[in-house]
Amino acid sequence: MHKLILLRHGESVWNNENRFTGWMDVDLSPKGVEEAKHAGTLLKKYDISYDLCYTSFLKRAIKTQFIAAEKIDLLWIPVIKSWRLNERHYGALQGLNKKETALEYGDEQVKTWRRSFDVRPPQVSFEDPRFPGFDPRYAHLDPAILPHGESLEDTISRVLPYWEVEIAPQIISGKTILIAAHGNSLRALIMHLDQLSPEEVVGVEVPTGTPLIYELDDQLRSVKHYYLE
Amino acid sequence: MHKLILLRHGESVWNNENRFTGWMDVDLSPKGVEEAKHAGTLLKKYDISYDLCYTSFLKRAIKTQFIAAEKIDLLWIPVIKSWRLNERHYGALQGLNKKETALEYGDEQVKTWRRSFDVRPPQVSFEDPRFPGFDPRYAHLDPAILPHGESLEDTISRVLPYWEVEIAPQIISGKTILIAAHGNSLRALIMHLDQLSPEEVVGVEVPTGTPLIYELDDQLRSVKHYYLE
Repeated sequence: MHKLILLRHGESVWNNENRFTGWMDVDLSPKGVEEAKHAGTLLKKYDISYDLCYTSFLKRAIKTQFIAAEKIDLLWIPVIKSWRLNERHYGALQGLNKKETALEYGDEQVKTWRRSFDVRPPQVSFEDPRFPGFDPRYAHLDPAILPHGESLEDTISRVLPYWEVEIAPQIISGKTILIAAHGNSLRALIMHLDQLSPEEVVGVEVPTGTPLIYELDDQLRSVKHYYLE
Repeated sequence: MHKLILLRHGESVWNNENRFTGWMDVDLSPKGVEEAKHAGTLLKKYDISYDLCYTSFLKRAIKTQFIAAEKIDLLWIPVIKSWRLNERHYGALQGLNKKETALEYGDEQVKTWRRSFDVRPPQVSFEDPRFPGFDPRYAHLDPAILPHGESLEDTISRVLPYWEVEIAPQIISGKTILIAAHGNSLRALIMHLDQLSPEEVVGVEVPTGTPLIYELDDQLRSVKHYYLE
């Protein structure tokens, strides 16, 4: 039996402002910092440790795992960062207020972008500053694989290879892993672990700053999962 | 020409209390946190970035690089932690107040332990809780290589192989590296880079929280070095 810990970052400044965030590198809100501390407190309370941490290239996830690790005195644990664990790229919606977007495009269209499995948001061009190719942290990657605006399906398509190639072998080797990431990159993992349908996964909501524990069998399928509280 | 950044952690709670710290995992003091922020501010002021960070297994160094990285928006940079960059292991002196130690052992003896190149402090046994083998972070290592109390020479002997095997090739490949570490593990690197004698290196004092920039030639010998201020 293997144990896996999933942790969505604490509230960010833009969650709070109700803006589409995606790959925009916004900070935790003060409430988000408290949520991250609470996540660490919960891991401590249930005496759940880990051997290795994966996180995204975005500071709201990186800081969440750091703040939680400090609470349980695990700052020395290796932390591996990957763009493949980033939030869904929200294309030209990134930075926009969700209400304003609804006024411009209509409620139904926004709902479709937010709740569908395979519909992409409006795309950003190669010239748009929101295209990741401008950011030094993605400069080492082939621009052809960088997103211009992802559907949930697109996000899943770039998260799962990382799971298969990088994370799953570490779990098989006996390590307990903490993955500190984002609502949609975690949905990708949950869909895989629980073998959910597209209809099912769009209904999954992962709360911020709350450790989600998976117990996995030798094929790394979910035996059970539960939130710490 | 290669650039290398050395950074000693900010003041710790025990620097402040004048106790022998070594591998004891004590936290930054509030002043140390401010020093770490200031280190980040200095890197920003001089527009000095880096591609990769190395640090020790001790939180005062790990937190220093994290706090500095946050100031210059480089939290996404890979960070590699190694016990080989830890502070000198101070054996049975760890935890003791320096003045009390002087009263017990005499000023001259304490001065010898602190200022000599090759004299070891009193050793901890395999049963002493200060022996690193009890700590889960060192559990994957062969107990035979874990220190019981190091001279500066011992510290240098376990830092330099890590430099040669792990860090130097990264610099040669073109990366700018930040090493966030400790007074004595940094002395080891400085002795090597500046080709200092044992007599010279014991006189080197690296100030806390102050970026030390080395410019290195293709053989990774120091061309010049300077502190940011």
